[in-house]
Amino acid sequence: MPKVVDVPARRAELAEAVWRVIRREGLERASVRNVAREAGLSMGALRHYFGTQDELLVFAMQRVMDRARARVTEAAQPTEDARSRAVAMLEEVLPLDDERRAEAQVWLALTARSMVVPALASVRDQSYDDLQRLCHAVVDALLDDGPARPGVDVPTEVERLYALLDGLALHAVIRPRSATPELIRAVLARHLDAITGGRRG
Amino acid sequence: MPKVVDVPARRAELAEAVWRVIRREGLERASVRNVAREAGLSMGALRHYFGTQDELLVFAMQRVMDRARARVTEAAQPTEDARSRAVAMLEEVLPLDDERRAEAQVWLALTARSMVVPALASVRDQSYDDLQRLCHAVVDALLDDGPARPGVDVPTEVERLYALLDGLALHAVIRPRSATPELIRAVLARHLDAITGGRRG
Repeated sequence: MPKVVDVPARRAELAEAVWRVIRREGLERASVRNVAREAGLSMGALRHYFGTQDELLVFAMQRVMDRARARVTEAAQPTEDARSRAVAMLEEVLPLDDERRAEAQVWLALTARSMVVPALASVRDQSYDDLQRLCHAVVDALLDDGPARPGVDVPTEVERLYALLDGLALHAVIRPRSATPELIRAVLARHLDAITGGRRG
Repeated sequence: MPKVVDVPARRAELAEAVWRVIRREGLERASVRNVAREAGLSMGALRHYFGTQDELLVFAMQRVMDRARARVTEAAQPTEDARSRAVAMLEEVLPLDDERRAEAQVWLALTARSMVVPALASVRDQSYDDLQRLCHAVVDALLDDGPARPGVDVPTEVERLYALLDGLALHAVIRPRSATPELIRAVLARHLDAITGGRRG
């Protein structure tokens, strides 16, 4: 009887093997050969799922994005007020614990590589659009919820929030002792207060 | 008569050859061999200046940092008001033209690599400290210049500004058509206005 393989589960395991290699040794070491070894598979078995290193990296990047997206959807409880909901959603894309910090490390490595690998640039651009939309929704919800604020330029506010999130994520990865979860939460809280006009600045 | 070589100039040319290879083909292609070819030198001649790829990458990263630092120092004219001075200095670390966008691309690639190369992490950390200090000086100067703002937490404001800058730089590199120089300048202006209390938010 042929062995039954749970293909999606196997692909997910392989994505996680890619992540481990990237985090431990760097992206340039995440060859098909090294990932196969990390996953305890033969090269032939791995090539059944992914033919090239780029396919493997694209899938690994896609999976970071899918996980973040699923967590944001889960966090978007419609029962809460706009601000609590914003905090809950945005915290899911910030590296505030080991799992999300690992994802952010992998994301940083793959984003850098995406400058020269078009297939990765395509995943990165989907994620960019997703996060830009999320920030747009948050800014809209906070502005609707707060006092009228004439003169607010929404595209500027959206980019200001989105850039802040990406900068915080970058800092949490490269300087975790400085950009601690406490500081990141304080910066986010401060910024959301500012959008709602809770405090000046 | 032995040929006279201007060593610092030659090293600078080599750093620029590293940048070109990183931008065109990716960091994993920036081997000693490929950089020698890019610079039109033999491997032996290149090894006279840099013994290993890591030394070459460290120097290339150091040089991005030195150039940005020199521009910021140049831009820090003491005659201007705090806000104009802040804009002038901060714009020097943002990728608002081709030269600074090229630097930011190289910086992103080397920052990602710094997660697994301690010598690069050390350059990155010096730059982190530099930029954190710059943001601290800007926040202090703006707060001194504006109306008293009790309740402002300076470390939070410093990180909020620094993370914003890094996020804007990242977006200018990965999505130049969305994060245009105009939008980046608008976001920065908006943020500095907010710190000085010029407008709410």
